[in-house]
Amino acid sequence: MPGRVVTLLTDFGNSDAYPAQMKGVILGLNPGVTLVDLTHEVPPQDVLAGAFLLGSSWPYFPEGTTHVAVVDPGVGTDRKALLLLAHGHTFLAPDNGLLSYLLPAEKRPRTPFQVYPRPLPQDLQAYAITNARYWRHPVSATFHGRDVFAPAAAHLSLGVAAQELGEPVETILCFHIPVPQWRGRELLGHVIHTDRFGNVVTNVGADLLAGKEARLVVEIAGATIRGLSDTYAAAEGLAALIGSHGYLEVAARNGNAARELGATVGQRATVRLCELPGDRRS
Amino acid sequence: MPGRVVTLLTDFGNSDAYPAQMKGVILGLNPGVTLVDLTHEVPPQDVLAGAFLLGSSWPYFPEGTTHVAVVDPGVGTDRKALLLLAHGHTFLAPDNGLLSYLLPAEKRPRTPFQVYPRPLPQDLQAYAITNARYWRHPVSATFHGRDVFAPAAAHLSLGVAAQELGEPVETILCFHIPVPQWRGRELLGHVIHTDRFGNVVTNVGADLLAGKEARLVVEIAGATIRGLSDTYAAAEGLAALIGSHGYLEVAARNGNAARELGATVGQRATVRLCELPGDRRS
Amino acid sequence: MPGRVVTLLTDFGNSDAYPAQMKGVILGLNPGVTLVDLTHEVPPQDVLAGAFLLGSSWPYFPEGTTHVAVVDPGVGTDRKALLLLAHGHTFLAPDNGLLSYLLPAEKRPRTPFQVYPRPLPQDLQAYAITNARYWRHPVSATFHGRDVFAPAAAHLSLGVAAQELGEPVETILCFHIPVPQWRGRELLGHVIHTDRFGNVVTNVGADLLAGKEARLVVEIAGATIRGLSDTYAAAEGLAALIGSHGYLEVAARNGNAARELGATVGQRATVRLCELPGDRRS
Repeated sequence: MPGRVVTLLTDFGNSDAYPAQMKGVILGLNPGVTLVDLTHEVPPQDVLAGAFLLGSSWPYFPEGTTHVAVVDPGVGTDRKALLLLAHGHTFLAPDNGLLSYLLPAEKRPRTPFQVYPRPLPQDLQAYAITNARYWRHPVSATFHGRDVFAPAAAHLSLGVAAQELGEPVETILCFHIPVPQWRGRELLGHVIHTDRFGNVVTNVGADLLAGKEARLVVEIAGATIRGLSDTYAAAEGLAALIGSHGYLEVAARNGNAARELGATVGQRATVRLCELPGDRRS
Repeated sequence: MPGRVVTLLTDFGNSDAYPAQMKGVILGLNPGVTLVDLTHEVPPQDVLAGAFLLGSSWPYFPEGTTHVAVVDPGVGTDRKALLLLAHGHTFLAPDNGLLSYLLPAEKRPRTPFQVYPRPLPQDLQAYAITNARYWRHPVSATFHGRDVFAPAAAHLSLGVAAQELGEPVETILCFHIPVPQWRGRELLGHVIHTDRFGNVVTNVGADLLAGKEARLVVEIAGATIRGLSDTYAAAEGLAALIGSHGYLEVAARNGNAARELGATVGQRATVRLCELPGDRRS
Repeated sequence: MPGRVVTLLTDFGNSDAYPAQMKGVILGLNPGVTLVDLTHEVPPQDVLAGAFLLGSSWPYFPEGTTHVAVVDPGVGTDRKALLLLAHGHTFLAPDNGLLSYLLPAEKRPRTPFQVYPRPLPQDLQAYAITNARYWRHPVSATFHGRDVFAPAAAHLSLGVAAQELGEPVETILCFHIPVPQWRGRELLGHVIHTDRFGNVVTNVGADLLAGKEARLVVEIAGATIRGLSDTYAAAEGLAALIGSHGYLEVAARNGNAARELGATVGQRATVRLCELPGDRRS
């Protein structure tokens, strides 16, 4: 049975009461849930930004958590309302790429950060939430977060089975999140997020850099950074370090690296290995 | 007995800890409540904006919910602290118009969006929260949200009866929210809200437009929009549609209609019926 | 045993999901806690601002509440992670001055608002959170909020004793928060906070002004204000009054006093006593 934690991620902002309306609907059906806001400040209609925030946050929640994510410029059209079972968690979202980070990395080359229909891996199940019995009526054509996703999440938390909510789905829309690889001494990465502090998060995982820290040179938005810092406090000016997501980040001590660099999601971040004076030649 | 959900709506913002202080007071009296933020980003002292957000959100909460609303430029003066029983919910707010949307529409003509003393309809009960026994002491002259409204809500959630908290009240201050009506082929509406996405919400209910969708022409802030769209995605440029509140909205696909139009609360939104080529003349 | 309320104060903002990640970790360890956001909009890395918000908010929470405060520019360095037992509450924070307002006022003169190592008074206990058994692993060098403080708070809420989490500490870093005193007819205060409404909060306690209300002249940022107002509504232009924190505030009716005055934390606020016409001379 799903756990009682339900998280909400939207682009509705904190100045309107749309997230609250979703909570009211959920609590009306199941007063026992614990509601947690992932964030409601996803930039309006920025599905890719929402995808990252969801993908980088669910792992910290207990197994059985239900995550409701609504960044939904296609609301009311024939885009599907999805329910995805993955990693022991349940995810509800429109079928527009918002669930991209929940699927294993796609290693074949594709245009970075473009949406494409992706067949679901066998160990994941997805459903289109088509069973109107579990919706709130009348359903607004402009707010499925409140009238479709919220009640579906509440019913799941009450023990309704996922397959009760709709039809199995075998393909969902995903952004292609590229997976960087070393090619000789060069690794081509991309910016995947910038945060409140101006930290510029790339898709370069810590494992790719292990043991090479001192020899790294990061090139991003015209700037060059040598070596990895351990902490923000150790940085002088721009610094590269492993951030809390486990990815290479670029930060500016007492500054805002994203603003200083003009860094945006999708931009390239190249990592090179330089030869150190003491390098053995073999 | 009132339910255990307590919502909070204020203009205190999310950068200070004033809403948290209210929650601390409530949890100190009743640790069993479920607290939900409607929003704390009502523009400072904008009672009318708060009234709309409260009035458009309470219906999604379970019966028995207690709603605490504090936009209170007159705090510490002799303005009353109100408790209103309506629609199976309980509302606490200063007597300044914040509860306007909870009363049935006033059909007699009045100056739109002006505050006036309004006798309570017979099926609603209101009280002035005068019983200091249920306040937090000492009461700050500048923060009744924390010292009067929050403890009152907590005591209600513990089962204290509304009439224990104070004296019956028969008149409360209300904004006049005009109710549009067709006059021939024209209907005079008003803007009552603009949201984060720039959607411009009017007071023209969906029921007034049913069956007339294709023939509608909306005029607002100098712009003219023909016909109703079904969804945001179907819009091209400016579009008129029925929003999630059940009212006529004007939206801009991938844009911000409120900003583009310079639309503000109180502005006129006129709806006309045009003759379609296929119209039967009778 | 500690209560089940856990509050969170950070500078992580509401647009990222860092606070949510902390909540996920806590709920994974103890699903029974009640989480309350003090605020996540402390200006980035502004430890002093966070210290005020924590210090002015904890008193409204029930005894036994655990407060997790993370404004942590030194994360990952050798700065300590602290646990402080004070006033029947538990506080977790980096050792950088964030707990300054929890200690009794330091009456000896020091440079205002500078950090210094302060020996703990005897009635308070503090620990360095060094027992890695109660951390989340792997510990990110850049996010102890999630990996050290959040799990420590969860374990405390489950009944783990404070001394289990680490070693006793006898000195913690504190900002010197000056305590104003009358010197003849003059009292030298300082600005300690400005809020969303532009209210300028000083460190001048209401007790220092009692009985002198009509004779007070407040000088702040070049402006002079005569007398104390009772309420915001009574103010005309700039007004001085006792705010909800119990301190002298300067406010502008329908305006933003902090912006108008250019007031910032640390600035002087001088209070003088003028002679009233009816003053007795002794």
